[in-house]
Amino acid sequence: MNVLDVKEEVALHAMVEDFFRSTFSTDNPIVTEAVKRMLAAGGKRLRPRLTLLAVAAAGADPSRQLHLAAYMELIHVATLIHDDVVDRADTRRGVNATAVDYGNRVSVLAGDYLFAWIFKNVTAGYPAPIPHVLSATLADICDGEVLQLRALGNLDLTLEGYVEIARKKTASLFAASARCGAIAGGATPAEIAALAAFGEAFGIAFQMRDDLLDMTSDRDTVGKPVGNDLTERKVTIPVIEALRAGNSALRARLDRFYRDGDAAVAAIAAEIVQHGGLTATHAAIARYTERARAALEPIRGGPAKEALAAFADALLSA
Amino acid sequence: MNVLDVKEEVALHAMVEDFFRSTFSTDNPIVTEAVKRMLAAGGKRLRPRLTLLAVAAAGADPSRQLHLAAYMELIHVATLIHDDVVDRADTRRGVNATAVDYGNRVSVLAGDYLFAWIFKNVTAGYPAPIPHVLSATLADICDGEVLQLRALGNLDLTLEGYVEIARKKTASLFAASARCGAIAGGATPAEIAALAAFGEAFGIAFQMRDDLLDMTSDRDTVGKPVGNDLTERKVTIPVIEALRAGNSALRARLDRFYRDGDAAVAAIAAEIVQHGGLTATHAAIARYTERARAALEPIRGGPAKEALAAFADALLSA
Repeated sequence: MNVLDVKEEVALHAMVEDFFRSTFSTDNPIVTEAVKRMLAAGGKRLRPRLTLLAVAAAGADPSRQLHLAAYMELIHVATLIHDDVVDRADTRRGVNATAVDYGNRVSVLAGDYLFAWIFKNVTAGYPAPIPHVLSATLADICDGEVLQLRALGNLDLTLEGYVEIARKKTASLFAASARCGAIAGGATPAEIAALAAFGEAFGIAFQMRDDLLDMTSDRDTVGKPVGNDLTERKVTIPVIEALRAGNSALRARLDRFYRDGDAAVAAIAAEIVQHGGLTATHAAIARYTERARAALEPIRGGPAKEALAAFADALLSA
Repeated sequence: MNVLDVKEEVALHAMVEDFFRSTFSTDNPIVTEAVKRMLAAGGKRLRPRLTLLAVAAAGADPSRQLHLAAYMELIHVATLIHDDVVDRADTRRGVNATAVDYGNRVSVLAGDYLFAWIFKNVTAGYPAPIPHVLSATLADICDGEVLQLRALGNLDLTLEGYVEIARKKTASLFAASARCGAIAGGATPAEIAALAAFGEAFGIAFQMRDDLLDMTSDRDTVGKPVGNDLTERKVTIPVIEALRAGNSALRARLDRFYRDGDAAVAAIAAEIVQHGGLTATHAAIARYTERARAALEPIRGGPAKEALAAFADALLSA
């Protein structure tokens, strides 16, 4: 049995939104307010939708796992609240964030409270190994972010090193979202492994697409300035691919930019495009999207499987 | 059977230190380094010692629960790492912290990673309800810290309001340390409740003593400047008690100090002492220490019970 109707994915998404709007609340009003603000700022709720699709793919009723799905989004929200904590250096460079309104101290506490609140609920309501999967995932996310901090401005970062960071900081939560949905839906071990593998490949492609949008979109589309990653000295996949194809002049120019910020970020982005950074990134996204689709092989055919494949394909239309 | 010998408490403390020095390690070298630095800075390891005494009070072998005990200290360390995150305002007031060396971003990530690492280990190695007790405790700690932030400079904070904050931000972890030790040691429900109640009363008295030391000790003894709580506009129990006994002039003076920082902190501390703030705080500590001792009533007599009572009594000698 595969209970998910194609139109139901839209209905499930609406249920997630409705849950956040009307049911979600913590015992701490400041935290509840901060979370609702963050949720209202946008987002496609991909993580909870992935959880619900995994539940459906296992043949169970996704509407019974709305809370579990919501926790996946809330882990993401908690990491976003903590991402907003700024350093002194950042304030000098004029970075703006939630922390500006609430203060760093409150941002740290609100994120901590949210993590604790999620684990409190998950340990009370879900069997092993779900609480363990979620805490291990949070460790991976933090580990990935520390690796990313250490790799800032490092033009020797390899594609493999980049993928390892993306796998930990981004894909691990997509993998956990699918894995936990599969477990809660009573999937077989083979199905659980397949859905987790789908989530991981999807998550890596998702991060690559995010890097690509940073080079091409405007502030209105992605909600942050173009080339924001470059300004933050992140070595993203378009940079790695442009360096691979490019010449020593490009390398020297990027090196100076990361060190001194001596050029307009739009000019740097244009050079990366010119050296094939976007084309190669599109190809990498296609590889991981294909890997995600292939991972679905052991999943029984039906609308949930189709919806998951469509999720992956949507990453290609950037 | 009560396996703890009186001298063994010293040996257990040494085992905790040894565990941190030689065995403790996470997969993230930056986090391991930050934790070891924080542990090397001092501390009496009261939380893990409480866990091990609770194990012994239940009649089990405490040396088999060293890891569980260590997690209690590490939760404390993770909150300290996050306490070091500074606001812009703080940097203007010249506050110094670990975050100065590592940066706010790294402090946030290191604390997050440590929380996640602890929960990952606890969910893998300990049965219900231990993982739930620990995540609920972390929620309490954050909730208490948010309440404390909201109460900064509020001269209308009552003793009840103060105790509620202390119970959440400080005593909850002492209570959880004792509770989890009791559970892991196979204590009866009555013993578990008694040891948790001991931890809570002990923790409240501990916080009151900490407040008192802030008024009386010098930088060398407590590792931070005298009157640090006053500078941070915390309304601690000596302040509440002095206001209760004091006159409207004291209230106006404190109000001005919290608003404008217009007086030397040592002069303000002296006024609080003069209005009986310390005497009344000593009395409150004695009340909660007595409550902690009374909570031990259901525990079978023996060296572990005696060691716990001695722990409580040690808070009286400030």
